[in-house]
Amino acid sequence: MSSIKFKIIKKLKGALARAGVLNTRHGDILTPAFVTVGTKGTVKSLSPEQVASLGAQVVLANTYHLYLQPGDKIVKKAGGIHKFMNWKGPAMTDSGGFQVFSLGDAMITNASKIVSGKLSGNKFLKVQKQKKLAEIDENGVKFTSQIDGSSHYFTPEKSIKIQHNIGADIIFAFDECVSSQASYEYQIKAMERTHKWAKQCIDYHKKSKNSKTQALFGIVQGGKFRDLRKKSAKIISSMPFDGFGIGGSFIKEDIDAFVGLVNKILPEAKPRHLLGIGEPIDLFGAIEQGVDLFDCVAPTRMARNGTLYTKKGKINIFNAKFKQDFKSIEKDCNCYTCKNYTKGYIAHLFRAKEIFAATLSSIHNLYFIINLVSQIRESILNNNFYKFKKINIKNLKCSQ
Amino acid sequence: MSSIKFKIIKKLKGALARAGVLNTRHGDILTPAFVTVGTKGTVKSLSPEQVASLGAQVVLANTYHLYLQPGDKIVKKAGGIHKFMNWKGPAMTDSGGFQVFSLGDAMITNASKIVSGKLSGNKFLKVQKQKKLAEIDENGVKFTSQIDGSSHYFTPEKSIKIQHNIGADIIFAFDECVSSQASYEYQIKAMERTHKWAKQCIDYHKKSKNSKTQALFGIVQGGKFRDLRKKSAKIISSMPFDGFGIGGSFIKEDIDAFVGLVNKILPEAKPRHLLGIGEPIDLFGAIEQGVDLFDCVAPTRMARNGTLYTKKGKINIFNAKFKQDFKSIEKDCNCYTCKNYTKGYIAHLFRAKEIFAATLSSIHNLYFIINLVSQIRESILNNNFYKFKKINIKNLKCSQ
Repeated sequence: MSSIKFKIIKKLKGALARAGVLNTRHGDILTPAFVTVGTKGTVKSLSPEQVASLGAQVVLANTYHLYLQPGDKIVKKAGGIHKFMNWKGPAMTDSGGFQVFSLGDAMITNASKIVSGKLSGNKFLKVQKQKKLAEIDENGVKFTSQIDGSSHYFTPEKSIKIQHNIGADIIFAFDECVSSQASYEYQIKAMERTHKWAKQCIDYHKKSKNSKTQALFGIVQGGKFRDLRKKSAKIISSMPFDGFGIGGSFIKEDIDAFVGLVNKILPEAKPRHLLGIGEPIDLFGAIEQGVDLFDCVAPTRMARNGTLYTKKGKINIFNAKFKQDFKSIEKDCNCYTCKNYTKGYIAHLFRAKEIFAATLSSIHNLYFIINLVSQIRESILNNNFYKFKKINIKNLKCSQ
Repeated sequence: MSSIKFKIIKKLKGALARAGVLNTRHGDILTPAFVTVGTKGTVKSLSPEQVASLGAQVVLANTYHLYLQPGDKIVKKAGGIHKFMNWKGPAMTDSGGFQVFSLGDAMITNASKIVSGKLSGNKFLKVQKQKKLAEIDENGVKFTSQIDGSSHYFTPEKSIKIQHNIGADIIFAFDECVSSQASYEYQIKAMERTHKWAKQCIDYHKKSKNSKTQALFGIVQGGKFRDLRKKSAKIISSMPFDGFGIGGSFIKEDIDAFVGLVNKILPEAKPRHLLGIGEPIDLFGAIEQGVDLFDCVAPTRMARNGTLYTKKGKINIFNAKFKQDFKSIEKDCNCYTCKNYTKGYIAHLFRAKEIFAATLSSIHNLYFIINLVSQIRESILNNNFYKFKKINIKNLKCSQ
């Protein structure tokens, strides 16, 4: 008996897209839905009330980061993630699998792509050390803490145990997230490891009483190889997971095709989460290909750097012309930021390095993407998805 | 005809303390009141709704800082400070006079007292250059911008003109704030300059239509010398100001006596603002000596450094024992932070350098001091000021 229920309300004719309701112990999620990221038990720069009032239905925290700081046992003692961070709605945790990639190979291959925060204080926008902090073997992953250099070994069972302590409504199996640059041979090896680990995760979870209160999603891997994606989808969907994640480091142009390939194999009745994807322009294709949930740090990370979403592409609030622009970010936007503040004020806050700059920008970007997904859901319900997609994609590709 | 009205409701028998109501075009201020500082047109890390809901009645922005960034003309074009920052209650601006001190002599004498922010990103907690950035002459002050090194000359008229552009309900005359270390001879010179400038400010203001919508407060100076304080109070109170500020860099132990000295001379019917003072323990004496308004950056600055007020003294949230403390900062506190979060969570946010740490801590410290002043007001109304003072002072002197 799963602790979540998923009901498909409407399917898009001739496509994989669907609108549904995902019922959790902390409330319903109307799908497709954008999942707001709260890595360390807080959506950066926002109160839970601000998060809820901009329309966010569900928050995703990070297993690896909470394990290191403050420690999953502390979160458990505090009464679990909901109580700890004062979030009353549904919550998820990823498994730490993405950190296998982001702290492993990505530290080396992306060494040149250091993103540096324009709002000082966002230390975590900076990749501070270009040393590999994750090493993988057959049984698990050795992480080196970026906080104090201490060593930690994650097995599939340990990842689930940590997620039990954190106590989110939906948790993920521990997987190996591989670089899109990896060879076919390595992808096979990693995929097989992910499948083996998936089995270990589900066995461990099913034996625990937490399986009555927490739903476990398996993760499909397979990288950029069609045959491996298919194989992974078949094997993972054969296991009794409550839902599925689609993981991996994609080549952006491939996402739609690969997601469709996987979703044709995954059982229709269970929810699907495309992990780590979700800039506005990515959503339409993913939803069309049958995805129900997305999470992505981009809206809030970009916000803290002064990059703001609009229906006609992104704007950079540091552009000098905005200093004397006394209009809202977007004319018809109903977010708190657009209802009450001008671009001139936000530009001032960024230049003055005021924390409230991050708050106002994050509210706008999150509202923008959450509201866009909500409108896409409406378009599925109202049979005008393709029209809505066409107009929006064209506009989003503009650049102001 | 003044744009504000001040009504004293109750006077404390045998003392200067009083409870009143200060009516402005943007609402009433129940006095004594703590004035929340929003230097650059934002109360650091808080939304105006958060500021209002924690009980703040009035916000004080900084003339010098807003002049440099974004520029007072931009604030004017945006519709004035209230509209610019979305603050619906009463607003004040200081005159830039304090910067004569903080960017002038204080840059040299306090060079060793560099305060460094524990939350990275609060660049403005750090004194970055130990070079004097303000130089004074008979007609005004030359400031060197800490942003771009450009030169700016403030005269009394220019300060008032800038404050007209910013558009707060209460503005201050341009004064010279002198170090408490200055000699008697220098204090006389500076005080006489302040008196001359006060006259220039009031002449300039009275001629402007802004005098109908903005109230102008004169500032008493005189440093640590009793005779000069008396003289300054007499001269400034002889001018038709709408209210009075008591300025200067005090020796902490002297504050009560000097404030009493001045307030015995200032006209009883007009509001009095003690500039830049207001840690919890300072309030009782100042109110007893007849002060109606205070402003101070300490509650929010300390909050961002993890120092939190309690009835039994301050605590440092970085203390290891708080990592596993699942109680609120203060048991009976009704602030949003204490109602919803534990010390353990706040300690986590600080360690993780999360922006929300600043928000939660600022809410608590501001609520604490605003609520304390509100309770002092009640104690005046209920004739139990001295009893309330005795209990609180004793507790506040504790250290946890």
